[in-house]
Amino acid sequence: MDRFVLTLRCQDRPGIVRAFADGVVAADGNIVESHQFSDPDTGTFTMRVAVDSPADVETLRSLVEERVAPLDATVTVRPEAQRRRVVILVSKFDHCLVDLLYRHQIGELPVDIPVVVSNHETARNLVEQQGIPFVHIPVSPETKPEAEAQLLDLVRQHDADFVVLARYMQVLSDNLCRELSGRVINIHHSFLPGFKGAKPYHRAHERGVKLIGATAHYVTADLDEGPIIEQDVVRVSHTATVADLVAMGRDVERLVLSRAVRRHAEDRVLLVGARTIVFD
Amino acid sequence: MDRFVLTLRCQDRPGIVRAFADGVVAADGNIVESHQFSDPDTGTFTMRVAVDSPADVETLRSLVEERVAPLDATVTVRPEAQRRRVVILVSKFDHCLVDLLYRHQIGELPVDIPVVVSNHETARNLVEQQGIPFVHIPVSPETKPEAEAQLLDLVRQHDADFVVLARYMQVLSDNLCRELSGRVINIHHSFLPGFKGAKPYHRAHERGVKLIGATAHYVTADLDEGPIIEQDVVRVSHTATVADLVAMGRDVERLVLSRAVRRHAEDRVLLVGARTIVFD
Amino acid sequence: MDRFVLTLRCQDRPGIVRAFADGVVAADGNIVESHQFSDPDTGTFTMRVAVDSPADVETLRSLVEERVAPLDATVTVRPEAQRRRVVILVSKFDHCLVDLLYRHQIGELPVDIPVVVSNHETARNLVEQQGIPFVHIPVSPETKPEAEAQLLDLVRQHDADFVVLARYMQVLSDNLCRELSGRVINIHHSFLPGFKGAKPYHRAHERGVKLIGATAHYVTADLDEGPIIEQDVVRVSHTATVADLVAMGRDVERLVLSRAVRRHAEDRVLLVGARTIVFD
Amino acid sequence: MDRFVLTLRCQDRPGIVRAFADGVVAADGNIVESHQFSDPDTGTFTMRVAVDSPADVETLRSLVEERVAPLDATVTVRPEAQRRRVVILVSKFDHCLVDLLYRHQIGELPVDIPVVVSNHETARNLVEQQGIPFVHIPVSPETKPEAEAQLLDLVRQHDADFVVLARYMQVLSDNLCRELSGRVINIHHSFLPGFKGAKPYHRAHERGVKLIGATAHYVTADLDEGPIIEQDVVRVSHTATVADLVAMGRDVERLVLSRAVRRHAEDRVLLVGARTIVFD
Repeated sequence: MDRFVLTLRCQDRPGIVRAFADGVVAADGNIVESHQFSDPDTGTFTMRVAVDSPADVETLRSLVEERVAPLDATVTVRPEAQRRRVVILVSKFDHCLVDLLYRHQIGELPVDIPVVVSNHETARNLVEQQGIPFVHIPVSPETKPEAEAQLLDLVRQHDADFVVLARYMQVLSDNLCRELSGRVINIHHSFLPGFKGAKPYHRAHERGVKLIGATAHYVTADLDEGPIIEQDVVRVSHTATVADLVAMGRDVERLVLSRAVRRHAEDRVLLVGARTIVFD
Repeated sequence: MDRFVLTLRCQDRPGIVRAFADGVVAADGNIVESHQFSDPDTGTFTMRVAVDSPADVETLRSLVEERVAPLDATVTVRPEAQRRRVVILVSKFDHCLVDLLYRHQIGELPVDIPVVVSNHETARNLVEQQGIPFVHIPVSPETKPEAEAQLLDLVRQHDADFVVLARYMQVLSDNLCRELSGRVINIHHSFLPGFKGAKPYHRAHERGVKLIGATAHYVTADLDEGPIIEQDVVRVSHTATVADLVAMGRDVERLVLSRAVRRHAEDRVLLVGARTIVFD
Repeated sequence: MDRFVLTLRCQDRPGIVRAFADGVVAADGNIVESHQFSDPDTGTFTMRVAVDSPADVETLRSLVEERVAPLDATVTVRPEAQRRRVVILVSKFDHCLVDLLYRHQIGELPVDIPVVVSNHETARNLVEQQGIPFVHIPVSPETKPEAEAQLLDLVRQHDADFVVLARYMQVLSDNLCRELSGRVINIHHSFLPGFKGAKPYHRAHERGVKLIGATAHYVTADLDEGPIIEQDVVRVSHTATVADLVAMGRDVERLVLSRAVRRHAEDRVLLVGARTIVFD
Repeated sequence: MDRFVLTLRCQDRPGIVRAFADGVVAADGNIVESHQFSDPDTGTFTMRVAVDSPADVETLRSLVEERVAPLDATVTVRPEAQRRRVVILVSKFDHCLVDLLYRHQIGELPVDIPVVVSNHETARNLVEQQGIPFVHIPVSPETKPEAEAQLLDLVRQHDADFVVLARYMQVLSDNLCRELSGRVINIHHSFLPGFKGAKPYHRAHERGVKLIGATAHYVTADLDEGPIIEQDVVRVSHTATVADLVAMGRDVERLVLSRAVRRHAEDRVLLVGARTIVFD
C-alpha cells in the first residue's frame, strides 16, 4: 500500500464527495485524512485527501478522474513519497535560507532542493557545503529580462514545482509573476498597522509598535499583496532599537516562511480567489 | 433547505465516506463543510459534516444511518438551528459566568441556558437580570450526594445537552462524572511546568514563571486530567504580583472556556481515547 | 507610610537620578519600584518610580521638585490610593464597556468612573445598574460642536484625568483632540498588513488574513495614527466567516483596551514624540 | 566615552539609588538605561544600569563600590564591549547549537564561544567549520566524575562566564551544579499541564495537548526545577503526530534558549531566591 495526496477543486454542488469516494473505493483505497471547505462567497469547493491504496498513481488518478468527470473539477494526485521540488532564491540576508537548509537537512521539510539561485555570491559557500548546486544570476536593470529568462530556464530544467523567495530582494516582473502564478512564495515583514514604503522597521519604531510580524504569501503582480499563506508576530517593547526589531523580525520571518513552504509542499494550500484555504 | 450538523465515529475502514455521502445524496443534501480525521493510534475514524438538505431531520438521519449500518458507526444528526442546551455551574468567582452570559446575550454563543446553578447565592442577581432562572444548591460533605442528585435532576428536567463548570469549586463525585461522561466541561489554570496542589499561583510566582495559562477539558473521575479541549497562555514578568497573576489568569480562563463551550456546542469536539479531535 | 507614584521627564543629562533620589531621601522615602528609559533618538529621559514615604503628597512633591529644578523636568506625584478618574464614551457596541465595567466592579481596574457618556441610549440600563451615571449626548453634524462642548464640560466638572473611547463611533474634532491631548485612549481593530478604509473585516477576509488584532492608542488629530499603547492579535483560519472575525476582534479589542486603560491609570505610559514608553 | 553595564543587589533600604547615582556622577557617568526591582517577598533590591563614562572600568567600579559600601551590596561592572564567554555543551540533537552558532556568526548574540564540548562526535564538523574548537568528552557512568572534571577544567582554562546546555543529554552531578551555580543555562520542553517522566511528547500527544512549549532555566541540583529565565509555546492541533510535536518543539526550544542566552549575556537576568528578575 502506498500513500497518495489528492486535491480537488470545483464549483460546489451535491454529490462531489460521493463521486470522489467512489473513485477511491474503486482503487481499493482508504481515506486516512481529509479536509474539505466550501467557500460561501465564491461557491468553490476544495478538498485535500490522503489515501492509502495498492494501486499505482496513474490507476488511482484515472479512477478518480473518471468518477468526477461530470463535475468539471481540477484534480491533483501525487504519491506522498514523491517530494516537491523547490528552487530557492536569495540575496544577501541568509537567515531564511539557513533555516530552510537546516530543516531540509534534518528531514523536517519534505522537499528536494535541486538548486539555490542568488543575485549575489554571498551564500555560495553555505549552499555548496550542503551538496546543493548554487547558481549566481546577477541582476541589473538592463539585464533583468535576461536574468529572469535564465531563472525560468532553471526552474524548468530542474522540473521545479515551486519557487521560494527567501529574502530575494529583486521584484519579479509581471510577466514572470504570471508565468509562475501560484508557485512563488515570498516572505516579508508586517506590522499592525501596516507601514508601507521604505524603511518600515524605522517607521514602526518611530510609531512605537508593540508587535512586529511577518507574512508569507504567493507572489502576484500586485507587489506584496498576494494571497496570504501564514503570518505570525512577536511582542516588542520600547527598549528595542531598530536593530533589535530587525533581529526579532528575522526570527518571525524564518518561522513563518518555513511553515508556509512546508504546507505548500504538502499540498495543504489551495487558492480560492485572493484567499488561501490552508488544510492543516 | 435547512442546515444540519452530523458527526460520525467508527473503526476506520475503506468505504466510510462513500457510504456516508450516499446517504446525504439520497436526502438531496449538499455537504457544505466537512472535517475528517483517522487516528493512526487507535484506528478510529471521526467526521463532522454540515449538510444543506430539504429533508427533515428524521429522514436525513435514517437515510444516512441506513447507508452506514454495516460500519457499526455512532452517528449524530442535529438541525443547526436547534441550539445545544447548557446548564452552567458556578461558585463565587463569576468572571467566566459573566463572560458566557454576555456572549450568549449578544448572540455569539449558540446555546440556550435554561438554568444556572450555584452552591452560593452570590451570582443570583447577575443571572436573574438576564431573565435566566437561578437555582441555589448548597453543598456540604454531608449533603453532597443529595445535592448531586438534585443537580442531575435539573440537568434531565431541562433536557440539557451538557454542563459547564464555570469556576465551580466542588469536585464532582466519580459517580456523577461517569453519569455525565463527555458532557461536562471544566476550566482550570495551567502553568509550564505544572504546579499541582494548593495555591498554584503562589507557587508559580515563587518559581518565576513567564507564562500562565488555562486549560478547558472534559471532566473525568481523574481530577483535572480529562481530555483537553482548548488551552492558551499569557506572558507575565517578574513585576507581576500573585494578585496580578490571578487577574491575568481570569482573562485566559474566560477566553479559553468560551472557546471550548462554543466548539462543543457546535459539535466540533469528538473524543477519541483520552484525546479530543477539534474540527475548527 | 503611604505609597506614591512619581513620573519625571526631561532632557537626558548626567545627575538626574541622583537629584531625584536626593529628593526622595529628604522625604524619608524608599524607592520600591523604578523604571527609567533614555530615548536615544530624542535624548528624552523618562522615569516612573513608586516610593513609600511618611511625608504627605505636597511635601514629597516639593522636596523632589526642589532637587530636580535645575533639570527643567516635568514631574508628577500622586498618592497611589488616589485613583485616576476616567470618563468612558461608548456608542452601540458595548463589549468594551461591559468589560471595563466588570473589571472596575471586581477591583481589577484602579479607576473611578464618574460618568459614562454615549451618543445613543443603548447602554443606559447596563451602566445605571452599576450605580454609575449615564449621560446621553446625541451627535449630528449640526450639533457636533455643541455636543463636544457638553462633553468637555462633563470632563471638567467630573475632574476626569482621562477619557476612554470604548468603541465610540464619532470622530473627535481636531480642536477636542488638542484640548485633551495625551488624555484620550481609543481602540481599533488592526490587521497585518493594514487595511484602511471601510469594512476592514470584509477586506481582511477577502485577503485571507491569518491574524486579526487590535491597537489601543492615544487619540491625535491624525485619525487612528496616534501613539500606540498596546496591541495584540488572535489567529484565525479560512473557516472563519466575516462574523467570526468580528467576534474574535471583539475579544482582542476588549483585552487590549483594558490593558491600555490599566497601564495609563497607573501612570505607566509616558509619551516621547510619537512613541509611548510603557513601564510594565 | 565607553559604555558599562552594572548590576547591584542588596537588601532593600532607603538611599540605595542615591548612593549608586553618587558613584556614577563621581565617574562623570551618565545613566542611559536603568531597571530596578524591589522584591516584596524577600526584601531584595536588584538593579541593572547602563552607564556612559570616560572613566576606566576599575575607576568606575571603585567609585561606585565606595558609595554603596554601607549597603553590603553585590556589584558587578563590565565594559559592554567585553563580551561574555560561553562554553556550549551539546549531545546529538543539534538544532539549538546550529541556532546559537548562526546568531553568533551574524553578530546577533553578543558572546564569545571559546569552545564547544560534546559527549558525541556528531557536531564536530559543524562547529569546526565556524572556526570554533570542538572537544569530545565521552561520558559513561564510570567516567562521569573524570569527564566533569575535564569539563570544569575547560571552563576555567577558557575563562568562561557561563555554560549553555544546548540539548546536552547528560545530567550534571550535584557537585558540578553547585560549582557552577547560576552559571549554567538549560533548555527543556514544557507542556500545560506538565508531563513528567519519560517520553513526554508521547504522553502530551496521548492527552491531546493544544500547546507545547519550552523553558530555559538555570540548572540546580533539583533536576529541571531551577529558576526560569524564559518560556514560550506554540499551538498544535490533533492532526500533529508525535514527530510533528517534536519538530515544533525544536522551534520553540531554539527560540527560547537563544533569548535566555542573550539576556544572560547582557547581564539582564538576576537571581532572587528561586525567581529570576529579567530586565528586558
